[in-house]
Amino acid sequence: MAFDLVLRGTLVRPAGPTPGGWIAVSGERIAAIGAGAPPPARAEEDFGDALLFPGFVDGQTHATSYRGLSGFAATSRSALAGGVTTMVDMPYDNPDPLDTVARLEAKVAAVESLSACDVALYATVAPGQGTGEMAALAAAGVCAFKISSFESHPVRFPRLPADETRAILAASVPTGLPVGLHNEDQEIVRGAIAALKAAGKTTPEWHEPSRPLAAELAATAHFLELGRATGAHVHIVHLSHPLGYELVARYREEGVRATGEMCVHYLHFDAARDTARLGARMKVSPPIRAGVVDALWRSLAADRFALVSSDHSSWPVDNKLVPSIFDAGAGIPGLETLVPSFYTDLLARTDRPAERLALEVAEKPARLFGLWGVKGALEPGFDADVAVLAPGAWRFDASTTRDGLNWSPYDGETFAARVAATYLRGRKVWDGTSVLGAAGGRFVPRRG
Amino acid sequence: MAFDLVLRGTLVRPAGPTPGGWIAVSGERIAAIGAGAPPPARAEEDFGDALLFPGFVDGQTHATSYRGLSGFAATSRSALAGGVTTMVDMPYDNPDPLDTVARLEAKVAAVESLSACDVALYATVAPGQGTGEMAALAAAGVCAFKISSFESHPVRFPRLPADETRAILAASVPTGLPVGLHNEDQEIVRGAIAALKAAGKTTPEWHEPSRPLAAELAATAHFLELGRATGAHVHIVHLSHPLGYELVARYREEGVRATGEMCVHYLHFDAARDTARLGARMKVSPPIRAGVVDALWRSLAADRFALVSSDHSSWPVDNKLVPSIFDAGAGIPGLETLVPSFYTDLLARTDRPAERLALEVAEKPARLFGLWGVKGALEPGFDADVAVLAPGAWRFDASTTRDGLNWSPYDGETFAARVAATYLRGRKVWDGTSVLGAAGGRFVPRRG
Amino acid sequence: MAFDLVLRGTLVRPAGPTPGGWIAVSGERIAAIGAGAPPPARAEEDFGDALLFPGFVDGQTHATSYRGLSGFAATSRSALAGGVTTMVDMPYDNPDPLDTVARLEAKVAAVESLSACDVALYATVAPGQGTGEMAALAAAGVCAFKISSFESHPVRFPRLPADETRAILAASVPTGLPVGLHNEDQEIVRGAIAALKAAGKTTPEWHEPSRPLAAELAATAHFLELGRATGAHVHIVHLSHPLGYELVARYREEGVRATGEMCVHYLHFDAARDTARLGARMKVSPPIRAGVVDALWRSLAADRFALVSSDHSSWPVDNKLVPSIFDAGAGIPGLETLVPSFYTDLLARTDRPAERLALEVAEKPARLFGLWGVKGALEPGFDADVAVLAPGAWRFDASTTRDGLNWSPYDGETFAARVAATYLRGRKVWDGTSVLGAAGGRFVPRRG
Amino acid sequence: MAFDLVLRGTLVRPAGPTPGGWIAVSGERIAAIGAGAPPPARAEEDFGDALLFPGFVDGQTHATSYRGLSGFAATSRSALAGGVTTMVDMPYDNPDPLDTVARLEAKVAAVESLSACDVALYATVAPGQGTGEMAALAAAGVCAFKISSFESHPVRFPRLPADETRAILAASVPTGLPVGLHNEDQEIVRGAIAALKAAGKTTPEWHEPSRPLAAELAATAHFLELGRATGAHVHIVHLSHPLGYELVARYREEGVRATGEMCVHYLHFDAARDTARLGARMKVSPPIRAGVVDALWRSLAADRFALVSSDHSSWPVDNKLVPSIFDAGAGIPGLETLVPSFYTDLLARTDRPAERLALEVAEKPARLFGLWGVKGALEPGFDADVAVLAPGAWRFDASTTRDGLNWSPYDGETFAARVAATYLRGRKVWDGTSVLGAAGGRFVPRRG
Repeated sequence: MAFDLVLRGTLVRPAGPTPGGWIAVSGERIAAIGAGAPPPARAEEDFGDALLFPGFVDGQTHATSYRGLSGFAATSRSALAGGVTTMVDMPYDNPDPLDTVARLEAKVAAVESLSACDVALYATVAPGQGTGEMAALAAAGVCAFKISSFESHPVRFPRLPADETRAILAASVPTGLPVGLHNEDQEIVRGAIAALKAAGKTTPEWHEPSRPLAAELAATAHFLELGRATGAHVHIVHLSHPLGYELVARYREEGVRATGEMCVHYLHFDAARDTARLGARMKVSPPIRAGVVDALWRSLAADRFALVSSDHSSWPVDNKLVPSIFDAGAGIPGLETLVPSFYTDLLARTDRPAERLALEVAEKPARLFGLWGVKGALEPGFDADVAVLAPGAWRFDASTTRDGLNWSPYDGETFAARVAATYLRGRKVWDGTSVLGAAGGRFVPRRG
Repeated sequence: MAFDLVLRGTLVRPAGPTPGGWIAVSGERIAAIGAGAPPPARAEEDFGDALLFPGFVDGQTHATSYRGLSGFAATSRSALAGGVTTMVDMPYDNPDPLDTVARLEAKVAAVESLSACDVALYATVAPGQGTGEMAALAAAGVCAFKISSFESHPVRFPRLPADETRAILAASVPTGLPVGLHNEDQEIVRGAIAALKAAGKTTPEWHEPSRPLAAELAATAHFLELGRATGAHVHIVHLSHPLGYELVARYREEGVRATGEMCVHYLHFDAARDTARLGARMKVSPPIRAGVVDALWRSLAADRFALVSSDHSSWPVDNKLVPSIFDAGAGIPGLETLVPSFYTDLLARTDRPAERLALEVAEKPARLFGLWGVKGALEPGFDADVAVLAPGAWRFDASTTRDGLNWSPYDGETFAARVAATYLRGRKVWDGTSVLGAAGGRFVPRRG
Repeated sequence: MAFDLVLRGTLVRPAGPTPGGWIAVSGERIAAIGAGAPPPARAEEDFGDALLFPGFVDGQTHATSYRGLSGFAATSRSALAGGVTTMVDMPYDNPDPLDTVARLEAKVAAVESLSACDVALYATVAPGQGTGEMAALAAAGVCAFKISSFESHPVRFPRLPADETRAILAASVPTGLPVGLHNEDQEIVRGAIAALKAAGKTTPEWHEPSRPLAAELAATAHFLELGRATGAHVHIVHLSHPLGYELVARYREEGVRATGEMCVHYLHFDAARDTARLGARMKVSPPIRAGVVDALWRSLAADRFALVSSDHSSWPVDNKLVPSIFDAGAGIPGLETLVPSFYTDLLARTDRPAERLALEVAEKPARLFGLWGVKGALEPGFDADVAVLAPGAWRFDASTTRDGLNWSPYDGETFAARVAATYLRGRKVWDGTSVLGAAGGRFVPRRG
Repeated sequence: MAFDLVLRGTLVRPAGPTPGGWIAVSGERIAAIGAGAPPPARAEEDFGDALLFPGFVDGQTHATSYRGLSGFAATSRSALAGGVTTMVDMPYDNPDPLDTVARLEAKVAAVESLSACDVALYATVAPGQGTGEMAALAAAGVCAFKISSFESHPVRFPRLPADETRAILAASVPTGLPVGLHNEDQEIVRGAIAALKAAGKTTPEWHEPSRPLAAELAATAHFLELGRATGAHVHIVHLSHPLGYELVARYREEGVRATGEMCVHYLHFDAARDTARLGARMKVSPPIRAGVVDALWRSLAADRFALVSSDHSSWPVDNKLVPSIFDAGAGIPGLETLVPSFYTDLLARTDRPAERLALEVAEKPARLFGLWGVKGALEPGFDADVAVLAPGAWRFDASTTRDGLNWSPYDGETFAARVAATYLRGRKVWDGTSVLGAAGGRFVPRRG
């Protein structure tokens, strides 16, 4: 009996790397993994010394917040080019967020018709909507809920009042789903922006002061207390500073189901060093801060992160290059740089970079979002999603990206490895140069 | 050389009680304290076995929130009858809060013309006012600032937005003054009240659920984080639950200048036991909760309280006895019960009740509000403020109070001691039956 | 290309159980693991719904402390019957402990000639010996050092003075090896025994009081401080009480390389319940205590254990059934009950019992003792050691054991599963009834 | 009615300094304290701006360990010259330690016939003695028990085995008395000394390495665990390093009645800086370490010390100036430098030096040793013990001391103040130059 496909290379597994390993695929699943001479297969590809990772799971993607559901087409192709086989897409879609089963069904349909990679979906709850739809959304397979303490857009990305946040948390408990928070205190941020604008301070270096750490930590602490009160899983979708991870850890030690997510750019850029060069191209919220990168790497060493994600946002650069930093869109593309840049930094800063990469960008998000058993590991029975990372210096040129955006704050950087191939459910979908084939992605419902 | 006055009895001092002690007064100050045969004096009063305490300092009084500045007259007489020689009066005056030096001057004038006891004063900052007046208020002797995260009244007791709170905290740092917070999340409370009203649940037992602990702790954690960010002294003016004191302690351990104040009724009443009997007569905010009294006494044993205060509010009972609990005023009179009720409970629950009473209701508030050196202890050089507590069962009859209100949730309770006499700066102002003499109170500015 | 052997069943893996899985073996190693139809192989065995575990690693065996090196023969056969493919053997051999390279060589020779299972080896350092041999022992592959704060035997199991303990810890640092401690304060235990003997209290119920928890914790704390001072990895080889694990965890939080091992009988027996029935048959040191089993399971839930071991001791029952409990040997046989009894208790007390069993009795000891990469997991490239656990009630009859002892405190208990087969490096060595073939065990040196 | 005596100056009190204060004495007690014009008295002494402290309580004196009970004569005169009115004398007397009521009676008789200052007394328990005398010693007024984990002398200062230590701790519980430990692991220290001697390293710089911090912390942790087991008050009589105070604090947080005492020389000398200059003149055990003085001052700021004592030892310098540091006596004279040197360092390093001095060297030891109510504060009803500290540079000349030793490691240092007068129970006993009058000291039994 022959397998459909065998892939050869160094397998990256929690037990350590397995050089001379192979992955045997039957249909869409991993049928076997092994070391040494591989079994017979109808097809075989040998990647030599390259690293074979589980297909990466990006825990935070905004594929559809700009172009709407049609955004899946380009964003998902970018994902595959970055080794990401599953995007966990945020609910703040243009024009309407995913807050009903009907919209979920529409988004699932869009995934299945447009997406080149697999997709798990967050849902949200609109202000004033009540919690009535949450159980049905959970039953239909959304992987988490997300809300915000800051209004980025009145309809698409609104602020939830604290009483509704509390009700949402309480309603999440029987579903078992995490509730993610965009954690900035609206009044503090708006007050700071107004003051800066009034002072004519609208150039990029004022972005960070306009969203002070206090805004982030105050909103975080407030939300964590509501987690304590309700018993919900309270997940902070990004924290820009080590103090935030310490705060989350403290509540966790006290029995609160609290987690905090790292986005990869906080581990790479420094406001003091990079703002002059990148300007709005590195505008994210909460902002990249000055002088905390080393401390954030110590947070990683202390295993403080629930996962590491891209927070990929599909803003065209025109949305960034506007006269006032306060009018520039927040968010950056990141699906094609997530893995190469993080791996490059891991190589420089840690032991066992490959295992850590697999842990933070595959296993942890798969477990957090209920995809484990299907996604996140090179295990028999899991989907045959594989990302091949080939070591070697690789200069990243943002003009070549597949995201339909073609800009990046990482433009021109040299990474220590590149994504040489990507397989989705046993099918080669990226060959190091091109995305292969048409849309073939699926919605991945949360399990258990 | 003879002293003006000698008082004899058991002195209550941090070192322990001194039976057979005496206090010698020259002018308005304590000139000496001693044990044994007293020195010659122009007058002497011997209280036998009664306890001589430093005049008590009530860290939280609302004398002027109902009748305006004229409220000082009755409230201060009630204070003296309760052994309180110094009220720390809150800034939420009717009709206008104390937020300018001009209003401070008016209030000081009212104190000096109307008040029978000494008074220290909180100031506040109005929404939109900016922080420009704070330094002048501090220089003029206010002892602290107070703000609220909840709007009880749009002008008198407004909510401060978070950005202004942050600015106020930053501006407080050079003054050294604590900033107190009324700590309830407005959205959570208003949401809960609206839901209860919509459900027709407006009887007193719905007061506690309308202001859930989550509202209190979320607002507290939010404020404490702003304290961390600014370096300000962040003082929570009341916490109804042991978790709140734990939260404050945790921040303090992390280096934040955080304190939390206990109000005496939380140590005495229980929502589960007393609501049916007392109804709106025990309505305070944050509410008295069910089943936490014993745990709060453990918090006292762990020395978690910055001080214990009355939170005396000058609401006529008509303000309470309205059809809906949500329309009833929050707050209760307490100046005449603070000391007798707390002492009675201390006797039943702790060792060394007298020292603890002096610590929590005299020394600690005097230190916190910058009155130490003048108020809060029986020390040579301090003001000759003395409260005489005579042991013996005493049934409290609210109809006899001097506060102009003549109602109390403690009405009919039997205490283990009564205030037999009070001296203010060397002058007898309460003889156990009557307040003696006319207004003689002074404004006590914060020192150092 | 065909594999040598395929085993089918439910694979127990960190990622979760894989029903319908298989393990393909080439030579002595696992070549592949998979799910679904297995690849061609020269032999195949299908265990249906039974659980396929990595061969278990018993982190603490005393195979040779009674009969000397010849003890390997029976003890190793017992191990295989219990699913244990690797014993970590303690150094306190009869007549001489393993404290030189020469003795290591002799013991390795005995393993290779007599042992039916693989063996890793602890070394020790004799009192007065100095630390000169430690580096050579480490280079020769011992996996850890063990010493004692209590003299069980003057030559074989002596007490190390504290100064030598400190020197040994310092000398261990460059080797990277853990130093295990038998952790009882000798003076306290001897004093207590003498007092009990003097009082004529020599029946089994006096064993526990003769070795009070204070003796255990004082010795543990003393040793942990020496770990702090030297930077060594300080490993407590057994702790009978949750407080011990808390103590170890506290030092670990403070940066000390501290671990604590659980022996399976502490999780099963209770001195209050079982002493009358079992007497000296449950004598171990530190003793099984009264009323702590549930709390120890909470320690497991909090992931406090470095591993779970059998502490198998090869005492004939005659060594136990003596008039005075103080003359009875301490230690019990346990290799054939370790897995069935622990699994039975895990089923009753935890979620995911199979993964936990694999973690505590295979992965964790393999990692701690430097055997990972070879032992401890079903991973391609690891040794093809497999234990097959077949669910179903199984009454344990100690008279049938293969350990040459034929007694057990578990005699007559009914377990929820039995070891249906064991494979050692690709060879079937236990078929559920008999140990197959002659000695084939090897010494497994520590890696890296 | 006139007082017997009035002393005028700045009173040092917990409430802060009272300039222009006075203390009025009747008989042996403080009758009154005051500020302003003093009352009539048969005698008055005005110390102007000098500081009037409560007579200091030295929590650790070895008055009689060298010359036996006759040592009280000189040592007590030295105490008075240092402002110390109460010595807490250690039990390790020459030739026999205080371990029976009979010896207590002899020592009390010696105090009353020879001592110029008041004396509280530690008792001990000899190895093998059993705990039978402890209750009677407590009833007879000893203030604490002391034992050692290190044998300094086989009879006078023996090591207690751990089982007896445990029994002593258990027996102390009903007495309420603290049990102090000299906390060095004997084996570690003896092993280190032997190794150093064998290497010919016997000069003073080898003293510190011969008693490594590990020896101190291991003995401390061991003892603290016995405190946890028994519920006794476990008091470490000296800790040379901040880690020791952290360890004690950790146990205290976990509910163990644990305290740790600071000796003043650890806050002043540094092994790295001072050994070459002072040699055996700074030999104490545990040793003064290198580079920890600043950290120990942070421990003081964190309020980690149970008290600060002199650990005055009455060794003639001949006992120190011997060829090998290991033959030199451990311990230094300190009664005349305790207050001036500590005050000088407090002035340089802290706010409120006078209050801190009174707290650490009067109030805290008085409370710990059960002398409060009589000793330790300037309070009416307390003994009229007063130490007058006159500010101004004062060069300390050891040849002038009254201790019969006339050497000191502080010789030649300049302090910021000197003890200008001392009063014992209302009688002037030191005038800044001479000790006045003959022996007049008393035994002070522990109260309550």
